[in-house]
Amino acid sequence: MKTGEPIRIGIVGAGQIAKVQHIPAIAASAGFRLTAIANPVPVDVPDGVTLFPSIDAMIEAGIVDAVSICTPPQIRYGLARTAIAAGLHVLLEKPPAQTVSEVEDLATRAAASGRTLFAAWHSMFSAAVEPARRILAERGVSAMHIVWKEDFEKFHPGVYWFWQPGGMGTFDSGVNALSILVGSMPEPVFVRGATFHVRDGAHTPISATLQLATPSHADGFSAVLDWNHAGEETWSITWTLGDGGTLELEQGGRILRLDGRMLLDAGDNEYPALYRHFETLIDEGRSDAETRPLQLAADAFSLARIERV
Amino acid sequence: MKTGEPIRIGIVGAGQIAKVQHIPAIAASAGFRLTAIANPVPVDVPDGVTLFPSIDAMIEAGIVDAVSICTPPQIRYGLARTAIAAGLHVLLEKPPAQTVSEVEDLATRAAASGRTLFAAWHSMFSAAVEPARRILAERGVSAMHIVWKEDFEKFHPGVYWFWQPGGMGTFDSGVNALSILVGSMPEPVFVRGATFHVRDGAHTPISATLQLATPSHADGFSAVLDWNHAGEETWSITWTLGDGGTLELEQGGRILRLDGRMLLDAGDNEYPALYRHFETLIDEGRSDAETRPLQLAADAFSLARIERV
Repeated sequence: MKTGEPIRIGIVGAGQIAKVQHIPAIAASAGFRLTAIANPVPVDVPDGVTLFPSIDAMIEAGIVDAVSICTPPQIRYGLARTAIAAGLHVLLEKPPAQTVSEVEDLATRAAASGRTLFAAWHSMFSAAVEPARRILAERGVSAMHIVWKEDFEKFHPGVYWFWQPGGMGTFDSGVNALSILVGSMPEPVFVRGATFHVRDGAHTPISATLQLATPSHADGFSAVLDWNHAGEETWSITWTLGDGGTLELEQGGRILRLDGRMLLDAGDNEYPALYRHFETLIDEGRSDAETRPLQLAADAFSLARIERV
Repeated sequence: MKTGEPIRIGIVGAGQIAKVQHIPAIAASAGFRLTAIANPVPVDVPDGVTLFPSIDAMIEAGIVDAVSICTPPQIRYGLARTAIAAGLHVLLEKPPAQTVSEVEDLATRAAASGRTLFAAWHSMFSAAVEPARRILAERGVSAMHIVWKEDFEKFHPGVYWFWQPGGMGTFDSGVNALSILVGSMPEPVFVRGATFHVRDGAHTPISATLQLATPSHADGFSAVLDWNHAGEETWSITWTLGDGGTLELEQGGRILRLDGRMLLDAGDNEYPALYRHFETLIDEGRSDAETRPLQLAADAFSLARIERV
């Protein structure tokens, strides 16, 4: 990669998240230039971008230094493995793979190849996370409740892979909250109990409740993740501070209130921040393969009480 | 703890595994002396051992320096936390807790208290593991197949907690094979796919098949874990070596065959070896909180195809 030249990047999987977030974020980035998109069926691509039917054809053309893998999570591991083997840097949409151990294997491969692997937990880059982290570190935290409710059909009409094995179900959205927790909490969080609501024919939950804990607090931490929610979506986390105050994160991390007072009302800047971080990682020859949000999800799956709905 | 004096140990949970394995292994150990057993309902105890109705009562009596927690896994975390807070060293039967993150929290607590935490994956101490490890390191491995089949009703008649959330189902036995893999394989192993067979009313599988992989091999590694097996139990792992040879571990790690030739035909020495290791850990002020077998199980739960049977 030549210094000063933008990094040539390709997108693998031209679905909703690529269209709405990755393509605009790359277009607004000085560090990256979108040169290619790989998708198994033809899609419209921006001017100057070449469409390929597969990652192999994209790699063969020799016009990318990096790829963003935006497919369903079940096939991310294999595609990332192919990309790393071809000497590319890799950004993985969240969740980064099906399992923690797949991510760890990719990190091993990236390190061996001297390439950057970035598990892009975009919600960790929401505007509220860093201010929340500072307040929680200073004032302590005694309780926490996540409410992550949305209407699946509104955001993902007709999409079926969420319900297939490895598709995560409501955790595909809910890991966003878990990633905010990992990014903001002064202590580790872990899962003590879970109830999953699973529809007939589905392998993953449509909704879930979690009992969480930290090393300092055996209970008082919980989450409701619900993809079967009629009406307006709610993506909020409320902390009770150590001194009895209240910290509220809303709209997935755009709004932060402390003791009822507005601290922050930011726009959606997650994906541009993701690409700045990816550029820094590549420049510094590092990886960022965070697994903790996925670990919490895996732990919940492994001890869940299953209710058929 | 006085040098030269045996470590006073208590058992929490006086079920089958305590009776058949822990009590005899402690009795045969020079390093430990069994002084107490805690169990919610009265049980027969060996001469000189005091029975308590709870871990709290046991701790209150001040006659133990260490505990072995042999309860169902769902309550191990809370009991271990109590024991560590009371300044005791802790051995955890396998699986060490419900989740990877619970084990990590216990390890953090043990480190902060200067106490030893030992996640006692007994199958890692079976006679075949170390010789298998040496052969696999030297000759390489290109494929592996686990067959872990037994009749649940024969070994655990009437026990229900295996089917409850966190009870692991067939993985309660199957993690033994996974722990042997972790102890013997020259590379990490990870889960690529899983099918779980779950009975009506159960939250955990009665049987499971796993597709596994290593960084060097994308497939050719698999497992069948079956608790619904009529007839003789099979606890075996077969490796195809890098040079085409065959290594076979049988009877859960007591027998090892290389290219059909018997290398090892050992007795059951796992639990005595566990207690020797626990003693060494305490002497050296260290912990051994291995989570990888449980991680593989959690990863399998998180991506499983569920079939109702």
